[in-house]
Amino acid sequence: MSHHPTPAGELTEDACWARLRGGEVARLAVIVDGHPEIFPINYVVDRGSLVFRTAEGTKVSAALSGQPVAVETDGLEATGPDGGAGTAPGEAGRALAWSVVLKGRAEQITGTDELMDTTELPLTPWQAGEKGKFVRIVPTEVTGRSFPVVSPDTWRTAVSGTPHAAEE
Amino acid sequence: MSHHPTPAGELTEDACWARLRGGEVARLAVIVDGHPEIFPINYVVDRGSLVFRTAEGTKVSAALSGQPVAVETDGLEATGPDGGAGTAPGEAGRALAWSVVLKGRAEQITGTDELMDTTELPLTPWQAGEKGKFVRIVPTEVTGRSFPVVSPDTWRTAVSGTPHAAEE
Repeated sequence: MSHHPTPAGELTEDACWARLRGGEVARLAVIVDGHPEIFPINYVVDRGSLVFRTAEGTKVSAALSGQPVAVETDGLEATGPDGGAGTAPGEAGRALAWSVVLKGRAEQITGTDELMDTTELPLTPWQAGEKGKFVRIVPTEVTGRSFPVVSPDTWRTAVSGTPHAAEE
Repeated sequence: MSHHPTPAGELTEDACWARLRGGEVARLAVIVDGHPEIFPINYVVDRGSLVFRTAEGTKVSAALSGQPVAVETDGLEATGPDGGAGTAPGEAGRALAWSVVLKGRAEQITGTDELMDTTELPLTPWQAGEKGKFVRIVPTEVTGRSFPVVSPDTWRTAVSGTPHAAEE
């Protein structure tokens, strides 16, 4: 693969989009009253942009109209014999993690035609409750990098409920 | 457990800290030149604050001196017979996801005594390369919520490298 990342290297734009298309959950950062806010979103890639549904409150909604936003998603690189990192995720030793950041502007989707298009997208209703607004993030910049991690398990999504003791 | 979350409910501050202590990877949002930036961090909880190491560039470093920041971490709730959601993560059906956001100010750790304390913290060197700066995030607000997810697998960290076809 021509776009296979080198350790600690930057990802090509194609590689970034492949990872965005392969994921569904990301974190969105917006500026509200001069402070950064982050929240998780369940998105899809649609014609070179990201689309997600939200029922967030009015402050966040206000920040989603033409404001600069950043979306980050990350994961572990699946590495095989040709993968370069030498070990598969979950095995002891080093693995590759990656992080992709998309910057752009958020636009609420309001036009009837576009909204009808959008409701056909596979946006899983992963969260119960009203999800009345559709938002499109039009990218101005997509960057990504991969880097070796020593303990890949720490990169996985935490499963809590029985949090282990603090290591302080 | 008195702080067990109710579906779609808010988490108590104690429950938020338990999840922060139980995790190691989070995403940090800062404002740089009027735009939000996000990047993943490997952190520890230390005396009611978060500490992480960074070798980020000068722009991000500048944003890490007294500026408002937000840190988000999320995961799946482990639910047992008493867990309330009825299914364990990974089983078909609904599960509970959670998201904790800590807002505060970032301070570079520079004092010799405090730095000596900090280097004893279990900050895993999960990323190769220089990690010269220690940053402490002093919280002003910690909030969290949990919410049911229909397909918990989508909440897990993506493993890419063989990205599946776009669902567009």
